[in-house]
Amino acid sequence: MTLPVLVLGGGPAGLSAAHALAAIGQRVLLVEKEDRLGGAPILSGYAKLVPSGEWARDAIGGMVARVEGDPLIEVRRGAKVAAFSGGPGAFQAKLSSGETTNVGAAILCTGFTHFDSVNKPEWGFGTYPDVVTTTQVEQMFSSGKGVRCPSDGRKPERVAILLCVGSRDRQIGREWCSKICCTVSANLAMEIREELPNCHVYIYYMDIRTFGLNEGLYYWESQEKYKVKYIKARIAEVTSDGKRLIVKGEDTLVKRPITIPFDMVVHAIGMDPNVENFTIGAIFDVKLQKHGHIDRASIYSATGGTSRPGVFVAGAATGPETIDDSIAQGQGAAMAAFALVRGGAQQAAE
Amino acid sequence: MTLPVLVLGGGPAGLSAAHALAAIGQRVLLVEKEDRLGGAPILSGYAKLVPSGEWARDAIGGMVARVEGDPLIEVRRGAKVAAFSGGPGAFQAKLSSGETTNVGAAILCTGFTHFDSVNKPEWGFGTYPDVVTTTQVEQMFSSGKGVRCPSDGRKPERVAILLCVGSRDRQIGREWCSKICCTVSANLAMEIREELPNCHVYIYYMDIRTFGLNEGLYYWESQEKYKVKYIKARIAEVTSDGKRLIVKGEDTLVKRPITIPFDMVVHAIGMDPNVENFTIGAIFDVKLQKHGHIDRASIYSATGGTSRPGVFVAGAATGPETIDDSIAQGQGAAMAAFALVRGGAQQAAE
Repeated sequence: MTLPVLVLGGGPAGLSAAHALAAIGQRVLLVEKEDRLGGAPILSGYAKLVPSGEWARDAIGGMVARVEGDPLIEVRRGAKVAAFSGGPGAFQAKLSSGETTNVGAAILCTGFTHFDSVNKPEWGFGTYPDVVTTTQVEQMFSSGKGVRCPSDGRKPERVAILLCVGSRDRQIGREWCSKICCTVSANLAMEIREELPNCHVYIYYMDIRTFGLNEGLYYWESQEKYKVKYIKARIAEVTSDGKRLIVKGEDTLVKRPITIPFDMVVHAIGMDPNVENFTIGAIFDVKLQKHGHIDRASIYSATGGTSRPGVFVAGAATGPETIDDSIAQGQGAAMAAFALVRGGAQQAAE
Repeated sequence: MTLPVLVLGGGPAGLSAAHALAAIGQRVLLVEKEDRLGGAPILSGYAKLVPSGEWARDAIGGMVARVEGDPLIEVRRGAKVAAFSGGPGAFQAKLSSGETTNVGAAILCTGFTHFDSVNKPEWGFGTYPDVVTTTQVEQMFSSGKGVRCPSDGRKPERVAILLCVGSRDRQIGREWCSKICCTVSANLAMEIREELPNCHVYIYYMDIRTFGLNEGLYYWESQEKYKVKYIKARIAEVTSDGKRLIVKGEDTLVKRPITIPFDMVVHAIGMDPNVENFTIGAIFDVKLQKHGHIDRASIYSATGGTSRPGVFVAGAATGPETIDDSIAQGQGAAMAAFALVRGGAQQAAE
């Protein structure tokens, strides 16, 4: 019997990797630092996912239930890996609980950290209660309460969604694009219009990146069916006139300053590298990319690999990623890890 | 011993799936309609891939060599699947050669068809020899000849790359975004500037979609290091003044008509659904999406699945896709197919 595969992180990528391994008879030790599985979609209370339209609690919740019910998967919640030594096929992992275990391979599915909007203070978050994040709007939907202004509980009549908060912003050290916020924001805009048909929803953007088939599903659908308005703009600041929030900026298409009042302003927050990546990288002795994402080995010869043989990676740990691709990558890394533990340590040198 | 898994298509996704299966001891029958493996990157002669920067002939060529040298993988070139019957764990595939074989599962890795620029005649392709496609520019690089005007072999001093040719264009029935052309075009622009430092390169765009970490690697790098110029424009037509090509349109940022001469105009062609998908869909009895891409089952419960149990799908067959994600999806679908053939047909009903 082969040693278990260590999967670090219980979000979509980790759940996918764990299930895929168990489905072919491979034992798994799944270690999650939070006290429940599901990753960002569950822990942050996402509503309907893109592009499936399924509720996160059903879609990802179903993945959680499948993993929790699998006798081949042992789960350690509220635990971290404190030390990791050995080589491919024969690693030793020491958990924060003190437990020590032998594993054949490891898959890092450690995801990302939501950008904290207080790092973009001129856009009003933390100053005005009705400036919220996309995650908060997700929670308004998933809680069943609907979209309400936090200040007084009223239904907003005018909502602005500001894209690229914590993305494509080199002033605050985040030059990357977070890949999925455009599509998520278009989806939320449609959801708001569905719940509040009299609410006007504006999306402030630099470029709309509803790539692939999302173009038809979100970009066109939001404009044509839901009458969401898109403004290409450079935003200067979000202030208040005492009654309403004021978004000031420059419309870069008409080259004029624009000042528009809103009841609610939503920051479409990006994906930072997991704040623990430097620690994780050191413990697992894997290279990081320049911004702190986990570096990948050549995907052509060793898909799912890291700089260390026997340690694999999947999902947003490597950079901003969609849930769908995180799941595929988790499954793919599982395949690579299984090939290793099945073939024994000698294959690792290939 | 389990039946082999049929992998249809020998591009990145199919090569990845075949290798992943063989790496864990599973036999594969790889069927490719062309007379060589490698898919679009090899058959169309791509140059350096994004985002790895590796040459396609090395990166994908290496994947081909690995598959061709694997005793567990039988390859049928110049062959198609003519009929496919049976159920999960026990399918019968009849090839165009007349060969009939039993397989446990199938993975459709049938990729895409490059958009044919003659379907956008007002942009000059087919009329002017110096209007070329991104694929042709890739071939100029991969052949080692460098970027030259087809009409007379001269080095172009001014090159325009037009994005979204056959993408985001509902006038010609293609509403989707092809996902990777922005990044590929930024990369080609940098390559042109590298080879011809005196050549001015312009990219005409609607939105720049260098998503994720590509933002720093291509969008900023191309502008700051390589001085590539980006023009947000609506293009009307490409004509000629007898000496040079003339790109006419409207600069949508300054709201003025722009008419700029170039030596070479490059169409950044998109990804059409594989033109054979209607046939493939009928033979394998799998559902297609509305534009003809192969439809996926829920990715949360059955990653890599199609509407038919035991038939899986990976890569650009499901919609515009990157090479990296196609490879991950191929590996993921391999995992799902292996779980099926290993567990026998009864698992398919789960």
